[in-house]
This record gives sequence, structure tokens and C-alpha cells, in this order.
Amino acid sequence: MMRAILTLCYDGTDFHGWQIQSNAVTVQGELMAALKKIFGAPVPVAGCSRTDAGVHAKTFVCHADLPSPFPLDRLPLALNALLPASIAVQSAESAPEGFHARFSCKGKTYCYRVYNARLRDPFQEHRAYFFPRPLDAERMHLAAQWYVGKHDFAAFAATGSVVEDTVRTIYDFSVERKGDLIEFRVTGNGFLYNMVRIMVGTLISREMGKLSYEIPEILERGDRTLAGITVPPQGLYLERVCYTEID
Amino acid sequence: MMRAILTLCYDGTDFHGWQIQSNAVTVQGELMAALKKIFGAPVPVAGCSRTDAGVHAKTFVCHADLPSPFPLDRLPLALNALLPASIAVQSAESAPEGFHARFSCKGKTYCYRVYNARLRDPFQEHRAYFFPRPLDAERMHLAAQWYVGKHDFAAFAATGSVVEDTVRTIYDFSVERKGDLIEFRVTGNGFLYNMVRIMVGTLISREMGKLSYEIPEILERGDRTLAGITVPPQGLYLERVCYTEID
Repeated sequence: MMRAILTLCYDGTDFHGWQIQSNAVTVQGELMAALKKIFGAPVPVAGCSRTDAGVHAKTFVCHADLPSPFPLDRLPLALNALLPASIAVQSAESAPEGFHARFSCKGKTYCYRVYNARLRDPFQEHRAYFFPRPLDAERMHLAAQWYVGKHDFAAFAATGSVVEDTVRTIYDFSVERKGDLIEFRVTGNGFLYNMVRIMVGTLISREMGKLSYEIPEILERGDRTLAGITVPPQGLYLERVCYTEID
Repeated sequence: MMRAILTLCYDGTDFHGWQIQSNAVTVQGELMAALKKIFGAPVPVAGCSRTDAGVHAKTFVCHADLPSPFPLDRLPLALNALLPASIAVQSAESAPEGFHARFSCKGKTYCYRVYNARLRDPFQEHRAYFFPRPLDAERMHLAAQWYVGKHDFAAFAATGSVVEDTVRTIYDFSVERKGDLIEFRVTGNGFLYNMVRIMVGTLISREMGKLSYEIPEILERGDRTLAGITVPPQGLYLERVCYTEID
């Protein structure tokens, strides 16, 4: 058995997320089916995280335990020939001793894209969240700095999600306008369920004057109902997965 | 009756082209259905050209003969509320006397996008033609200058298309690499069926050493079998429609 690290990219529009499910098309399901065709045996695969239906990945990392030898430099093209065009394997390399795609992960960067113009753009339909009311990217960038640091993000997790420890560290959060697109880019050591979408939604709700408290107080109170909307999945992209310590 | 000029933008992926058909979803069909809902009566619509299934439009112009008055500045949002998200009406204005979206058109600009990298990009699947073998954009740009001018483009029309006059004028043809994307941009006074896709395909076939004759001789012989491949529709975008004389 040899553990390989696979890096992939996918357009999440047509998938019910990463995680394999019995009655839905998922990225993990498609990848495992392609690996099984190549190796003639089931190949266990573990991803760096789950992604929701409709969420995209510019970079997604998983490991696969290959049952027999295969030249890794040829594995991406072999897999891509079997995978749907909405998934592309970019690289395959040998995993270092003890590597686990999820447990070895030290941090991730997500990008959330908002299309902020009066009229919608058909080419952004599944690629960004269309929000027609004007948003001030600079003001959102300043407010986003409250997220940076080590905080209890209980108020920024989907209700019903059960996690014991809701403390996470955000290393960086930037908000930048590029024409009609606004890019929210956040790097952290880990994220609670829907946390990025609620952090972005809270910045937008704040712009709309819908918050009763400022972000530091929402963090302190830990009450989901005080934070803003959960923005929809199609604007979210997993962009970078980091396996070395982030300072 | 008032003739209005509508400018739209659409992602052609899910449409069987512009032209209305009885058993297929088309852009014209969707637009006429939305107009009928607003005006309570059929609204005749004529487009600047047909586009094939899968072809996109950054700018498409049509005229609509409105049976009753409607504030034109409010028409785009009213239509967009009824149209699928893959179509957006960008503007509506009153047509000058004698205007016809097709017959008044003096020229069009098309852009064809090729994704030219070793590995495919899932986000370009329906937006560009994936061609993994390396292409030299500068060399294609030089060869494309042979198309510029007034020529008989009979060799660059789909076989079976019946047009009496196959002479067209190309005002400009540029080929430019932007990272892994190559953009072919062509402006002409009119185009034969599949002409842009065959002109681009011939530049690519030339790069691959597949042409027996140079482009000037193919133009002169007027034989479709001497030109190159017809590249697929998903890379093609109607970009600009011009109603004033181009010099």
C-alpha cells in the first residue's frame, strides 16, 4: 500500500459536495469510482474537509491509499480521462510518513465572491453570489479585521452543528473589489460548519444596517442569532490547503 | 406599436441557440415568453443573428415590437425577473425609424476562447475549448492577418449552407494569449455559417501542420475540405454588434 496525495480542482455546481453519499453525485464518489477502474479494487480516499453542495474548489487535497504501484506522474491524466470534466486532478505525489489529508492540515484559505452590480451577469450565475445593492468593500475590509486572531466563533457556526471546541484562529481576512466582483479571502487554522459563509454574510448584513451589535460583541456573546445571513454556497471557493505551520 | 431595441447577455450552455424552436429551449423563446407575460399579448422579436447551441453572447441585440406603452428604463429589471438567470437584459431603448436588428447591422465582433494548458480547468468547461497541445498565439496572430480584407469565404462556411454571396469583409483579427487562455477576436461586416469557428479551427490546424495549402490559397480555391477543423461552440462569444458604418 502506498499513500498518495492528490490535488484537485472542481466546479461544485453539479455535485452534492465532496463527501461520498449513496444516492447523490459527489466529488469523492466520482474520484473513488475512477480510482477503482484504474486499480481494479476499492481505493480508500480521505479529503482535507467536507464541502457543501454547490461549493467550488480551486485546490482540494485528499489522500488515496493505492493498493498497487502506479507511476504517480501519469496518475492525473489517467484519472482525468475517467472523471467528469467538472473535476480535474492537478497532481499526485507520494505522501510523507504519517500524512493524513484532514488531520495533518494546518490551515486553509477560502475565497468568497460576490457579484455586486445592479444587473445580474449570466456568466456569474453559479460562480458568485449576486447582490445588487451597493457594498463598500473598503469598509467591509476594515470590519473584517475584527475576525482576525484567536476567538470563540460559536456565533458563526450553523445552528445544530455539534462541535465541542468552537475556538479557531483567523490569520488573515481581506475584502477587495475587482470591478463588479468583491472577493472576501480568509485564512484560518480551521473553520466551523458554514463559518466562512456566516462571516461574509455578517459583513454584508452590517453594510445593510441589520446588525444590533458590532462584531466583537457578537463574538463575545456567542449567539448565532446576533450574526448576519448565511450567504449561499455558489460564491465559495476552497483556494489553498496548507500542511506547514502558519505563523 | 413601438419598436424597442433590447441588449442582452446570455450563457448559451443550456440553450439550443437563439432562434425560437417548437421543442427546444432557446433564448428567443424565453424572451418572447417573458414579454408575453408583461404585455399580455404576443410580442414579435427579431435578433441580430442566429447563434448555435452552446454559443454565448456578451452582447446580443434584438428588437421587439411592443403592443402597448411601457417605461423602457424599467423593462430590463421587469424582464430579468421573469427570465432564467442565464439570460440578462442589459438595456432597452426606443428604436430609430426603420431600425431592424438584423438588416440594420453593419458589423459584429466575435471572441473565441481556447484553454491551452496541459491539464483541463473545470471552470472553463462550457466557457472555452480545451486544447492541450501547445499553441503559439503570436504565430497564429500573424497568419490571421491573411483573413483581413474583402474575400470570398466559401472555403470557410459549413458544407450544406446555402448562401448566394459568400464575399465578406473582415476588418480586424487578433490572437492574444492571456495566461492559459488564447483569445481570437474577429470583427467583420458579416459571417457565413460556422465561419468564425472554421477560421479559428484553420489557424489551429495550421499550427498542427495539418494544412496542405496556406490560407490565401484556401481562400482562392474556395474548397471547404482544404480549410481546418470546426472548433466547438462553447468557446464562441458574440461580443459586439455595430449599427454604424465601420471603416
